Amino acid sequence: MLHLLLELGNLKRLPRTGWLLRGVPYPESIADHSYRVALITLFLADELKAKGVEVNTEKALKIALLHDVGEVRTTDIPKTAQYYLDKGRAEKKAVMELLLTGPRPREYFKLWRDYEEGTSLEGRLVKFADRLEMLIQAYEYEKAGFQDLDEFWGALESLRESEFYSYFRELVEGLVEMREKLHRD
Amino acid sequence: MLHLLLELGNLKRLPRTGWLLRGVPYPESIADHSYRVALITLFLADELKAKGVEVNTEKALKIALLHDVGEVRTTDIPKTAQYYLDKGRAEKKAVMELLLTGPRPREYFKLWRDYEEGTSLEGRLVKFADRLEMLIQAYEYEKAGFQDLDEFWGALESLRESEFYSYFRELVEGLVEMREKLHRD
Amino acid sequence: MLHLLLELGNLKRLPRTGWLLRGVPYPESIADHSYRVALITLFLADELKAKGVEVNTEKALKIALLHDVGEVRTTDIPKTAQYYLDKGRAEKKAVMELLLTGPRPREYFKLWRDYEEGTSLEGRLVKFADRLEMLIQAYEYEKAGFQDLDEFWGALESLRESEFYSYFRELVEGLVEMREKLHRD
Amino acid sequence: MLHLLLELGNLKRLPRTGWLLRGVPYPESIADHSYRVALITLFLADELKAKGVEVNTEKALKIALLHDVGEVRTTDIPKTAQYYLDKGRAEKKAVMELLLTGPRPREYFKLWRDYEEGTSLEGRLVKFADRLEMLIQAYEYEKAGFQDLDEFWGALESLRESEFYSYFRELVEGLVEMREKLHRD
Amino acid sequence: MLHLLLELGNLKRLPRTGWLLRGVPYPESIADHSYRVALITLFLADELKAKGVEVNTEKALKIALLHDVGEVRTTDIPKTAQYYLDKGRAEKKAVMELLLTGPRPREYFKLWRDYEEGTSLEGRLVKFADRLEMLIQAYEYEKAGFQDLDEFWGALESLRESEFYSYFRELVEGLVEMREKLHRD
Amino acid sequence: MLHLLLELGNLKRLPRTGWLLRGVPYPESIADHSYRVALITLFLADELKAKGVEVNTEKALKIALLHDVGEVRTTDIPKTAQYYLDKGRAEKKAVMELLLTGPRPREYFKLWRDYEEGTSLEGRLVKFADRLEMLIQAYEYEKAGFQDLDEFWGALESLRESEFYSYFRELVEGLVEMREKLHRD
Repeated sequence: MLHLLLELGNLKRLPRTGWLLRGVPYPESIADHSYRVALITLFLADELKAKGVEVNTEKALKIALLHDVGEVRTTDIPKTAQYYLDKGRAEKKAVMELLLTGPRPREYFKLWRDYEEGTSLEGRLVKFADRLEMLIQAYEYEKAGFQDLDEFWGALESLRESEFYSYFRELVEGLVEMREKLHRD
Repeated sequence: MLHLLLELGNLKRLPRTGWLLRGVPYPESIADHSYRVALITLFLADELKAKGVEVNTEKALKIALLHDVGEVRTTDIPKTAQYYLDKGRAEKKAVMELLLTGPRPREYFKLWRDYEEGTSLEGRLVKFADRLEMLIQAYEYEKAGFQDLDEFWGALESLRESEFYSYFRELVEGLVEMREKLHRD
Repeated sequence: MLHLLLELGNLKRLPRTGWLLRGVPYPESIADHSYRVALITLFLADELKAKGVEVNTEKALKIALLHDVGEVRTTDIPKTAQYYLDKGRAEKKAVMELLLTGPRPREYFKLWRDYEEGTSLEGRLVKFADRLEMLIQAYEYEKAGFQDLDEFWGALESLRESEFYSYFRELVEGLVEMREKLHRD
Repeated sequence: MLHLLLELGNLKRLPRTGWLLRGVPYPESIADHSYRVALITLFLADELKAKGVEVNTEKALKIALLHDVGEVRTTDIPKTAQYYLDKGRAEKKAVMELLLTGPRPREYFKLWRDYEEGTSLEGRLVKFADRLEMLIQAYEYEKAGFQDLDEFWGALESLRESEFYSYFRELVEGLVEMREKLHRD
Repeated sequence: MLHLLLELGNLKRLPRTGWLLRGVPYPESIADHSYRVALITLFLADELKAKGVEVNTEKALKIALLHDVGEVRTTDIPKTAQYYLDKGRAEKKAVMELLLTGPRPREYFKLWRDYEEGTSLEGRLVKFADRLEMLIQAYEYEKAGFQDLDEFWGALESLRESEFYSYFRELVEGLVEMREKLHRD
Repeated sequence: MLHLLLELGNLKRLPRTGWLLRGVPYPESIADHSYRVALITLFLADELKAKGVEVNTEKALKIALLHDVGEVRTTDIPKTAQYYLDKGRAEKKAVMELLLTGPRPREYFKLWRDYEEGTSLEGRLVKFADRLEMLIQAYEYEKAGFQDLDEFWGALESLRESEFYSYFRELVEGLVEMREKLHRD
């Protein structure tokens, strides 16, 4: 397991390439991103429960922590690159082999697939959290003065079409409003 | 809740000051650290279960994700500074007030206290994971060529005295051996 | 004394956290800031003298060089954190103990207190220079494209209310005008 | 063509991931690397000519400048990732499509293939220069204090087996000797 | 020659100071810049040929690769500094002595002079490419959110007055239009 | 004067090139260095007084603050570059013209010359402090793991030959001993 824990260190060292390509110098790491995804997942899961939706929080948190773990070996392949590289297939294989070096490889791999394929409510919730996190980060970079990040906001559509949108409309639209305020000022 | 999610972004921006003070340029962020602590917690919890110990993984994961959340407001006060500043009291108040801006403030605060005061097995497990993560990072910096990190290895003692040591002796001593090999070469 | 000189190196390694929290990547160090504060102090002291005010330049310079020296041990505790941490008390103790490792601890500590408590004209002049330096830096970051720094400009008020304002009105308002020009364009 | 020139800017922004993964903070960019590869190619081509080998320097320089151009779209896929991703196929397609946005797409693509497949002496010479450049950089990082770069030196073998080795033995072995001296001291 | 190749590594480590002084944190290196200059030179040379102008591409590429090579020893002296330092004379001597440590010093030095003094069409073409590259980079920094770069756009004039302008009017004015669009939005 | 204060900001943005060229990523700024030089000057001046030497501390501090001020316009020309560039003459002119934009240009310029030409005890003391500061920084980088800094230690000779050496022998040799200990371990 020690080797797995060491390999996970790559996620601290690897930048999220989407920001890099748009001129943000030394942007967040993959680990930075995954951490807030996990926290958002926790908060959203608890909110859903409070609203009467049945969610398995433990499962959701595990998925959140594992959802980008394959990038330890594949690095963060940005959108443009995905046109040329079969990211899905690569990550699947990387995750499978990586997890074999730790405990419960089957269970963890199944959880990762829940995220990738959206086969469980928890997997879809993490995908929602993943996109929300990205938009919050985009907003933060724009607030600090960075521009050229419009493209990221395309992800709004998928948030609005999600089954979770009705529960978190205020959150999503609140962010959009803050962004609009930013650009008005 | 949106405001809370934005404030959490500070953990990506704030460096872990311990490395900074020993000359590591642009070291990991607090979020970087917290992410691997959460993953380690997950793996250790599952290992413990496999060895017949009863652990509440969900609880442990929540604690791991929340354990450094007060640093959003206090920043990462390094060891030397703690001699002058009442970090414990400050973080307690900061965590309490911060969590009030999100869901389930009482439950989350109680979890944070579990970590801080070691009142539950899960809280103590996260403390074990927290120290282990720090040592793994120290090893990685030393492997990359940085020196002057001996001081961090004092944390070994607390790992060896922990109730979890007998379960993870191989992991801890495996790291120590790898470090020794590094310095022999 | 060698140990003191080495400890002072921390001020080069530690970032000014206020900028960091607002998204400036790798901002100035505490030493960067202190250096310009000292130079501003020198220029202002000489200007005051030319205008007939009695200032002890040597004393003012010593205060400027020492005013943030406690952060060697406490780090730069940002505004938000000061709500939770007793920065004043911590710095006082840190400065006192730090200076004990060098020459003339009593004299230097007294000078630091002049700054902290504003008990001498020279101490108050350095406080004026300290705030002016911060605003000049804020202006420079804004000029380079960074935003989200409005909060810092609250310090203008204290400059305008200072006993030194009448002597340096042109300087302060000149900066304000340049900033306004920046935002008009 | 303007769009092509802008896209090429990505090579300045993208780090060489091999160094990143081994703990070098903010390593060289892909453009940094390509620049020295081109200069080395120039020097080696001229040396070869002086030794009676027929080389088309213009062709060699073009290949050197174009050899990593596909990474504009694929990023620098490190060794580990290549086990999961078909880098060769991706780069081929990326290069082809990228070059279509500029002048002489066919000629340039053919040159890129010369490098990739080693079909001309000039293509193989650039591959030799590419590896040599990497080893020189590895040596420089090691000289500066970084460690954990042993793996890169595996490329020595391919240099020694190259058809160009007999011409540049002194260069290659000179570097090896300097490295050995470094580790002796 | 090995020593020359090692010295060239300085161009990766040295930042282009013009950006640095205007607040771009950790801007491109000299090597970053030189790489794109060489690629632009290649494309422009081929375009010129297609339009019936006789250009020696090999010569142009060599000049592009060598044009900033003196900065290995002089560093990138920014505009303001050139008022105080005789950059021309220093670079001339530095280039001459540097090239003596590699192959064909006379030929290479003559090529460098072609650039510096504009004595050949190829030398002037690289100067055109050098300025164009700088403006493309300025545009990219502005697109990412950086400001205070107006001064660089003074170079437009020299592009418009160049003998090559009529061939590349579309390219130059296309960039200007994109910039205007940026500032309109 | 505002313009002068803004120009001084360059000293925060400009790296000390000596470290950069030897592979220290993002080393200290010129302002970082100047700050500790000023503090060291303060301590040494007070020590000298305690030992019965007459020193004008105010004068010494002014010299320390101003000693590198010309680099605002010339940047930090490293040793190798000084062989090609007349740094002394350039800095002299730059300092003279720069200071004309602030108060007391003649007095300040005279102080700068005291440093440059060693015409007063205070000027020579700052030169001693300047070199000592550099060696302390070299030691700190070496302690953190950086290598290839031997060359800097040549400055030891000039410290040992200085008129101040007998007063600060313990300080200088204490540093040398700590360095030797570092390399023994």
